[in-house]
Amino acid sequence: MEHLKQEVLEANLLLPKHKLITFTWGNVSGIDREKGLIVIKPSGVEYEDMTADDMVVVDLNGTVVEGSLRPSSDTPTHIELYRSFPDIGGVVHTHSRWATTFAQAGMPIPALGTTHGDYFYGAVPCTRAMTPAEIAGEYEKETGKVIVETFRDKNPNQVPAVIVHSHGPFTWGATPKKAVENAVVLEECALMAWQDLLVSNNTVQPMQQELLDKHYLRKHGKNAYYGQKA
Amino acid sequence: MEHLKQEVLEANLLLPKHKLITFTWGNVSGIDREKGLIVIKPSGVEYEDMTADDMVVVDLNGTVVEGSLRPSSDTPTHIELYRSFPDIGGVVHTHSRWATTFAQAGMPIPALGTTHGDYFYGAVPCTRAMTPAEIAGEYEKETGKVIVETFRDKNPNQVPAVIVHSHGPFTWGATPKKAVENAVVLEECALMAWQDLLVSNNTVQPMQQELLDKHYLRKHGKNAYYGQKA
Amino acid sequence: MEHLKQEVLEANLLLPKHKLITFTWGNVSGIDREKGLIVIKPSGVEYEDMTADDMVVVDLNGTVVEGSLRPSSDTPTHIELYRSFPDIGGVVHTHSRWATTFAQAGMPIPALGTTHGDYFYGAVPCTRAMTPAEIAGEYEKETGKVIVETFRDKNPNQVPAVIVHSHGPFTWGATPKKAVENAVVLEECALMAWQDLLVSNNTVQPMQQELLDKHYLRKHGKNAYYGQKA
Amino acid sequence: MEHLKQEVLEANLLLPKHKLITFTWGNVSGIDREKGLIVIKPSGVEYEDMTADDMVVVDLNGTVVEGSLRPSSDTPTHIELYRSFPDIGGVVHTHSRWATTFAQAGMPIPALGTTHGDYFYGAVPCTRAMTPAEIAGEYEKETGKVIVETFRDKNPNQVPAVIVHSHGPFTWGATPKKAVENAVVLEECALMAWQDLLVSNNTVQPMQQELLDKHYLRKHGKNAYYGQKA
Repeated sequence: MEHLKQEVLEANLLLPKHKLITFTWGNVSGIDREKGLIVIKPSGVEYEDMTADDMVVVDLNGTVVEGSLRPSSDTPTHIELYRSFPDIGGVVHTHSRWATTFAQAGMPIPALGTTHGDYFYGAVPCTRAMTPAEIAGEYEKETGKVIVETFRDKNPNQVPAVIVHSHGPFTWGATPKKAVENAVVLEECALMAWQDLLVSNNTVQPMQQELLDKHYLRKHGKNAYYGQKA
Repeated sequence: MEHLKQEVLEANLLLPKHKLITFTWGNVSGIDREKGLIVIKPSGVEYEDMTADDMVVVDLNGTVVEGSLRPSSDTPTHIELYRSFPDIGGVVHTHSRWATTFAQAGMPIPALGTTHGDYFYGAVPCTRAMTPAEIAGEYEKETGKVIVETFRDKNPNQVPAVIVHSHGPFTWGATPKKAVENAVVLEECALMAWQDLLVSNNTVQPMQQELLDKHYLRKHGKNAYYGQKA
Repeated sequence: MEHLKQEVLEANLLLPKHKLITFTWGNVSGIDREKGLIVIKPSGVEYEDMTADDMVVVDLNGTVVEGSLRPSSDTPTHIELYRSFPDIGGVVHTHSRWATTFAQAGMPIPALGTTHGDYFYGAVPCTRAMTPAEIAGEYEKETGKVIVETFRDKNPNQVPAVIVHSHGPFTWGATPKKAVENAVVLEECALMAWQDLLVSNNTVQPMQQELLDKHYLRKHGKNAYYGQKA
Repeated sequence: MEHLKQEVLEANLLLPKHKLITFTWGNVSGIDREKGLIVIKPSGVEYEDMTADDMVVVDLNGTVVEGSLRPSSDTPTHIELYRSFPDIGGVVHTHSRWATTFAQAGMPIPALGTTHGDYFYGAVPCTRAMTPAEIAGEYEKETGKVIVETFRDKNPNQVPAVIVHSHGPFTWGATPKKAVENAVVLEECALMAWQDLLVSNNTVQPMQQELLDKHYLRKHGKNAYYGQKA
C-alpha cells in the first residue's frame, strides 16, 4: 500500500495547489481494487504537515486496517462510491467556491460549452436534499447513497462529478490524480456557468448535443484523437 | 504577557496571509482573563514592520498599561466584546470584501450550506444602523454595544461573528488564532452566499435545520467526532 | 525554424503566466510566411515540461514536416486563419474564463471603453453556432471557416479576436507574442464588459464612435503617438 | 530632481504590486511645486525594465526638460490636475478593473460604507462624456479639463479620485505614494460597491451622513485620532 499512500498524499496536496480548499476542507482517497482497501486522508490534519504515513487505510466496511490517525469523517461517503461505481480508482471532496455555490442553490451545473464537454458528458447533477431521517442516521454513508441514487440513470464514468445539495462537490476518476483533475475542471465550469446564468438572466441554454458529442468523444473512448498516443 | 503578545502578533500576521486586509485595515486582539489585560495591534502600523514589542497592552477600561504606541482605534469595541462575551479569548476586525459587501447592504449572511454550518450555528447577523447620538458619542464603544445588543437572544459562542452595519465584520473565538480562522470562514461563506443570492434572484433559502444541527454539532460540543481526538 | 520554435514556445509559456489557461487548454502558433510553415504546440503536453524541440512544424495542408509529437488538435483552425488573414503571424486559442463566458452565452464583447478601444476597433464578434454537418465533418477546419465567415465584413487586423460560439476565444497578431497580448487584453475587456452588463441590467451602451476612433488610432496606424518611436 | 524621480519610479512600481494594471496601462507622476516641474513615467515602457533615469521631467506647459524618452501620453491630463488642484503632489491613472467598470457604465462610486468614508468624503464622481470637439481637439488636455469641471463644486482634497467616463480612474494625493494608496482604496471600494449594487438590484443606499462625517474626520483634519502621532 506504500505506493497508493504516496499517490493519495500527492493528490491531496494538489487541492491547495489548485486553490480548491480552505484549511482542511477536502479529502482525496484512492482504492486498491485487488486488495479491497482504500487509502484516505486523516480527518482535520493540516495539509502542510501531512506525510504519506499519515494516510489511513480502511477496508470496504470502513474498518481501519493501518494508520494511527482517524480517517476523514467523509470516509463512509467515499466507500459508498467505490462500492457502487466499480470502475473508479479515486474520489475527491471539496468545498470549492463555485461548485459549492451551485450546491447551496440546489442547482445542477449545465453543459454550456466545450470546456465542460471535454470532461463531462452532460450536466453535472445536484442530489436531492437529504431527509431528516437520513441526516439523523448514518449521515455520511447516506450521503454516498443519495449520490448513487442520483446516478441511477447516468453513467458515472461519463459524468465523474456530482453536487451534493446544500453541501458541495464530489468528483471521481480512474486514479486519485484524475479525480482531482475533474475537481479542478468542475470548479472552472461552475464558475463560467454561474457567470452565464447571471449575464443571461438564467435563460442560457445548454450547448448543442452534436457539439457535446464531438468534444466528449474526441477525448474519451476508442476513437479519441486528443493528446499524444500512448 | 510576552507569550500573548507573540500570539496576537502572529494572529495579526495571518490577516494579510489570508488576504483579509488591505494596508492596515484590520486588527486582532487577545485577552488574559486572569490579569484582565488585553493585547492589541497598534493603530495604523504596517503589518510587515510589526514586532511583538509593538503590541499594546490595555486594561478593561482602555488604559494603556504597556507599550509605546497607540492601540488600535477600535480598541473600545474589542473591550465591549470581552466584557460581554465571557468565554472569548480573541477578537478580529477586518474590512474583508464579501463580508463588508453584506455590511454595506445591511444584510445578514444566511446559513446556506454545510461550510457555514460547520462554523456558525445559524445566520451571521447584521447590526442595526447606529443612531446619530451613538455616532457622535463614544463611537467605537457604542459599536461594541450595538454588537452586544444584536446578540441579546443569540449565543456568541455558537455564532462567533457579526456584521456591523455600513462597516464590516467582527469575529471572535477561544483564542486570537481561532478568531482569525472564523474571519477566514466568514469571508468564504459571505462570498458563496452573495453568489447564491445573485444566481437565485434573492430567493435562495437557508439550509434545512436538521442539516445545520448535524454539521454544527459534529464539530462542536461533547459529541463532536470531526478531527483527531485530543 | 529554430528561432520560430523558440518564439512559439515562449509565447505558449505566457499563457499560464497570465493565467489564461488551466492544464493544457490552450495553444499558440506562429508562421514563417516565406517558407509557408507553421510552428505549433503539441497536443495535450503539460506546459512546465515543454521545450522548443517539442514544437511541431506543419505545412499549410496540416502535414507534419518536423517534430516527433502530434500537433495541437486545433491545428486545422489555426491553418484556416493563416490562409485567410494574410497579415497575421501568430494565433492563440484559450478557454480563458470571461471570454469563454461570452462564448457560452453566444454574445459578442461590446466596445465599452478605452481599454477595449486601445486594442480592438469595435466589438469582438461571436461566431454563429456551427451546424451539425460542420460538427460531424472536419470539425476543427470548419471552426476556422466559421471564424473567417464572421470576418467577411470586418478587418481582422483591426479586430484581432473572435469568440467561437459555445467554445472560447481565438486571437491573433503580427507575432505569436502579440497574439498572446491580444488574448490577455480580450480577457480583461470581457471581464469588465460582463461586470457592466450586470450592473446595468444589460442596458450598457457602446462607447462613442469618436472616442473609439481616437483611442484606436492613437495607438495604431501611421498617426499613432503612443509609446516610444521605433 | 533625482529624489523625486526615485519617488515617482517607486510609486509606479506599486501599481503592478497592487495588481492595478495590465502591461503598461497606468502612470504615476509627482510634482516639485517650487520648481514647477513634473516627473512622470515614460510612455509604453514595461514596468520591470524601468529605472529612475527613465522618468521624464516636464514643465507645466508639457515641454520635456530632462530625459531621453517620451513622457506618458496622458501627461497633459496630469498637468491640468496640477494646475487646478494646488495642494496635490502626485497623480495616478490606471485601468483597474472595478473602477473602470464604473467608468464604462458612466456611474459614480457611491459612499456605501466606512472603508470608502475613511478615504473619500462622499461619492467618487464620474465625469460627463466628452464632446466630439473635445475628443478631436487636444484630447488628453481636455480630459484634464473635464475632470476639473467635475470638481467645480467639490473639494479635490476631500475626494481625491474621479472616474473618467468610458475610460477609467484618476486619483491624486499629497505625494505620488499617497496617490497610489488612493488608487488601491478606490478599486477596493468600487469592487464592494459593484457587489452591493448587484445584490440589492441597484437599490442600495449611501451610508448615513453622520457616519461618513465620523469616519472621514477621524482620519483627516486637525481632530484626527487614527494612527500614530507624528
